[in-house]
Amino acid sequence: MHILITGGGGFLGQKLARKLAANGKLRGQEITAMTLMDVAVPACPDAGFPINAEACDVSDEAAVGRLFAKHGPFDVIYHLAAVVSGAAEADFDLGMRVNLMGSLNMFQAARAQGNCPVVVYASSIAAHGGEEPDVIVDGVELNPQTSYGAQKVMGELLLNDMSRKGFMDGRGLRLPTVSIRPGKANAAASSFMSSIFRDTMQGDTSNCPVGRDFLIFHSAPRTVVENLVIAGEIDGAEFGFNRCLNLPGRSDTVGEMIAAMTKVFGPEAEARITWDSDPVIEKIVNGWRNRVISEKALRLGFVQDKSFEDTVRWFLEDDIARPA
Amino acid sequence: MHILITGGGGFLGQKLARKLAANGKLRGQEITAMTLMDVAVPACPDAGFPINAEACDVSDEAAVGRLFAKHGPFDVIYHLAAVVSGAAEADFDLGMRVNLMGSLNMFQAARAQGNCPVVVYASSIAAHGGEEPDVIVDGVELNPQTSYGAQKVMGELLLNDMSRKGFMDGRGLRLPTVSIRPGKANAAASSFMSSIFRDTMQGDTSNCPVGRDFLIFHSAPRTVVENLVIAGEIDGAEFGFNRCLNLPGRSDTVGEMIAAMTKVFGPEAEARITWDSDPVIEKIVNGWRNRVISEKALRLGFVQDKSFEDTVRWFLEDDIARPA
Repeated sequence: MHILITGGGGFLGQKLARKLAANGKLRGQEITAMTLMDVAVPACPDAGFPINAEACDVSDEAAVGRLFAKHGPFDVIYHLAAVVSGAAEADFDLGMRVNLMGSLNMFQAARAQGNCPVVVYASSIAAHGGEEPDVIVDGVELNPQTSYGAQKVMGELLLNDMSRKGFMDGRGLRLPTVSIRPGKANAAASSFMSSIFRDTMQGDTSNCPVGRDFLIFHSAPRTVVENLVIAGEIDGAEFGFNRCLNLPGRSDTVGEMIAAMTKVFGPEAEARITWDSDPVIEKIVNGWRNRVISEKALRLGFVQDKSFEDTVRWFLEDDIARPA
Repeated sequence: MHILITGGGGFLGQKLARKLAANGKLRGQEITAMTLMDVAVPACPDAGFPINAEACDVSDEAAVGRLFAKHGPFDVIYHLAAVVSGAAEADFDLGMRVNLMGSLNMFQAARAQGNCPVVVYASSIAAHGGEEPDVIVDGVELNPQTSYGAQKVMGELLLNDMSRKGFMDGRGLRLPTVSIRPGKANAAASSFMSSIFRDTMQGDTSNCPVGRDFLIFHSAPRTVVENLVIAGEIDGAEFGFNRCLNLPGRSDTVGEMIAAMTKVFGPEAEARITWDSDPVIEKIVNGWRNRVISEKALRLGFVQDKSFEDTVRWFLEDDIARPA
């Protein structure tokens, strides 16, 4: 069982690699090797099997071919590599190259192996928006309102069709906003959804540009990683005609999430939050969907956070002890 | 007002060119030139303005660039060129090249003009299937069950996003089965949906592989062409967040359609239909959707056939007098 993780240097790729290394198995088989690839050489976690770390740009078809020739064939491929929403919005062609053509390159390389590998693809809740109901249920027309979302959904269609053709055994997960995301604040409109917890618990101030009753659809990194593993375990046929689905998440208000942080961490963090509203960010995040009923995913055995208190505890355990 | 039609040599491209030539205007402006392109040099209809006919493969980015440099900028682009469903299913890479990359090439060339041209894109009812309700309404998740359908939907996402970005003013129409299609029977599973009328009215026999109560979601070529013109006329903002929609059509049983033919044409044609069932074709067409409620399209002013009798009359007027 050889596993490839693209975007293997990102915080999710690293957490997934550590989880798989700890499990030692996937799909009932011993993991015998893992390859992590990213634009820069990713860090390697400790593992009971060899790990290859490679710098490889998914948008470079020839480089992807070389990586598969060197380390493949892979049995399970986690395709997490992507240009994030802000960057894909600022540079349309960059997003197309990495998010669309990069996915096409990975899927074609997976197909060329001839072994119909399991491919787990990270799509996004950004698939939703625009002409959609306020509460997202399974089966509503995807209507992304960002280039990132559009490119992710094009990858979903490719994954579905290439799975139907028997080229690969694909599974696509639309990830909720991942909070509490480790690392640094970034320019994403959603950055505050992690930083008002992450940074304040570490002694820094952080601004919340929306009000306390703003609703966030979120999932903890640990839960998202668990769902990525589950996606690799499930029998492909269980997905039915559509290999892509909305992952479960929680819908909590900013106020509820802060209260959960205070309960676990104490009141010092909240005191470091400032409340300067930002109409630009407010406009963007008000266009998002924040209520999702993920019936299909729950039926297939994907898991859901039980509380934001858990998320705060896991952040302190996983990310303060070991910064990502 | 210079109009470009890709797939300009196909039966819809030719009918659209003749219709626009007859109208002489689009979007309140005189048509001053038209360019028809296809893999082979298309025929030119009579028109009160010059028509360029060019052989150009949409999947050849450089050739598309040369065509735009030679004849552009265009004000309205009808992008009809595609590899049809049977061919895209038999050769995945051909379909990807022509249907996905060809659309990307056209949209990028349209964007490079810098004039935000109107782009009317022919998508297909093949966008629907799989995990969808029996009756298709606006807003159900597209779940194509063919590579052709998947590639068409990827083009829709591209068109929506590039319109949102202001690169072009796109409109995508999911066409019903076009019946009565002129020309020859082909290998498409839907071929009989035209040939049992077209061929029998012209003295040939034709086999119907499904029963009389099989329901077909269809639209007449004349109506589809009228809707392509309407799509070019509408103000883009009227489409809202989603530039792509299900065109109206009619749901009639084979038996009802034959009765309409008999009423208009007389009983000789029906007598030339044979009824050998074909489980392979039956399996494919039973997977399609045949009931569609196109609320949004009707609200925007798109038109719907009033009867299949009209379709039979129009076929006799348009296609027997002038075979396509």
